[in-house]
Amino acid sequence: MKFRRSGRLVDLTNYLLNHPQESVPLTFFSERYQSAKSSISEDLAIIKQTFQQQGIGTLITASGAAGGVKFIPKVEREEAEEMIRDLCELMEDRERILPGGYLYLMDIIGRPDLIKKIGRLFASVYADKGIDYVVTVATKGIPIAYAVAELLNVPVVVVRRDSKITEGSTVSINYLSGSSKRIQTMLLSKRSLKEHANVLIIDDFMKAGGTINGMNSLLEEFQAEVVGIGVLMEVIADEERLVDDYVSLLKLEYLDSKKSSIRVNQGNYFLNLA
Amino acid sequence: MKFRRSGRLVDLTNYLLNHPQESVPLTFFSERYQSAKSSISEDLAIIKQTFQQQGIGTLITASGAAGGVKFIPKVEREEAEEMIRDLCELMEDRERILPGGYLYLMDIIGRPDLIKKIGRLFASVYADKGIDYVVTVATKGIPIAYAVAELLNVPVVVVRRDSKITEGSTVSINYLSGSSKRIQTMLLSKRSLKEHANVLIIDDFMKAGGTINGMNSLLEEFQAEVVGIGVLMEVIADEERLVDDYVSLLKLEYLDSKKSSIRVNQGNYFLNLA
Repeated sequence: MKFRRSGRLVDLTNYLLNHPQESVPLTFFSERYQSAKSSISEDLAIIKQTFQQQGIGTLITASGAAGGVKFIPKVEREEAEEMIRDLCELMEDRERILPGGYLYLMDIIGRPDLIKKIGRLFASVYADKGIDYVVTVATKGIPIAYAVAELLNVPVVVVRRDSKITEGSTVSINYLSGSSKRIQTMLLSKRSLKEHANVLIIDDFMKAGGTINGMNSLLEEFQAEVVGIGVLMEVIADEERLVDDYVSLLKLEYLDSKKSSIRVNQGNYFLNLA
Repeated sequence: MKFRRSGRLVDLTNYLLNHPQESVPLTFFSERYQSAKSSISEDLAIIKQTFQQQGIGTLITASGAAGGVKFIPKVEREEAEEMIRDLCELMEDRERILPGGYLYLMDIIGRPDLIKKIGRLFASVYADKGIDYVVTVATKGIPIAYAVAELLNVPVVVVRRDSKITEGSTVSINYLSGSSKRIQTMLLSKRSLKEHANVLIIDDFMKAGGTINGMNSLLEEFQAEVVGIGVLMEVIADEERLVDDYVSLLKLEYLDSKKSSIRVNQGNYFLNLA
């Protein structure tokens, strides 16, 4: 089928958005559109300019016979600040405060549009870190992990707290939860992860960091390299923090369920931007 | 900022893809691009034609002063057949067979690109059914539920099997699992669902249908209307099926772990297409 430029621009945009972090040879597009590579290159220049101008991301193009294009999603600083400000506001709703100083998050975690934005923020930080897997622990981290993994074009691996027969053989560890000092178990299917992989850990919440520390130990069993840790919200904790190199979008500064008072600020996200 | 047509086409395509099932007034775009509504209408006609031709979905446009546009993701029958054929092949790998006649699925469930396609298939069936929530049960159904919900532009609600303090007050039910005939519990946070909502249930696997039947009972407590049930894979079961109105992408016809033999066919998906 022959395409005009306008049709090519629409389809190319859709294709690139749906194949982030994937090198696509120009030949693929010139066959798809029955168009010369020079025309495709011009299309890509227009798309690159618009993506950058609109803060969608960037295109990396390699010219020549083996030339190709790769879409890297990126969030501009200004948009990131706005997203995180919006999240702070959503979080600082007194209605979220549960007895015992806990926070109801399921409505936020349940919104695919917000999850997608959160995913873009993390993917922007880890786009060029050579991540092979995104690892999370069941269950609230799962949607965030998928949103990040989709943009990094890598699989998701889910650590569980209970064994299921459908996992096959597993590796398990016991660890000390940071805040309650209880012994807990987590496990991972043996075939879920190749050895010596570069891994990004994603979770929704981090207090002392016991869970993430446990994941670190579990991942050591797979000779994995933890390249990054991303959490939606960190909590100012009294006890010593077990994890120090992480990226947080939000920081729960203060939560008093008796006074029904809560304070959420931005996390360390912007300290981690290049 | 003033845009030329080529830049508008790229940005419009990105915007629409990221806002499925959302009515956007033409005024929004004419301000965004500092362009006349008539030019925007021409842009949208080009996008609509390309989206339909390439099987991306359709645009519904309303003209006049209050005119607007809505993107409805759709999968064409031919593409759906190819996707489901590919999934069958992936599933029919003997390496997946676990002792006891179980199937290892985590590598498939772990791939965001496949999950996205699975989401498009379900969203295509339920796009015009007025769904308010996608409901799933922890944990393997979660990524599929988000992929569908994103395209339907509605929130996800996750039913749990164990109570967590961060859920707040919950409604719980006991139910009989269809295959093992054991009493199990599931629960849902009280504030997770508005009353009288239209709900789509999504899960990864259905054998006798006990879990989905349990979800039906739990959702009755919220006066919810179950408008549809979508499962990635149904299993030919000896016992009586407890659920009969559902859409399945795949059907596990046969699985013998001793003989290391497995047969997966397409489910009833195409019987449910308009």
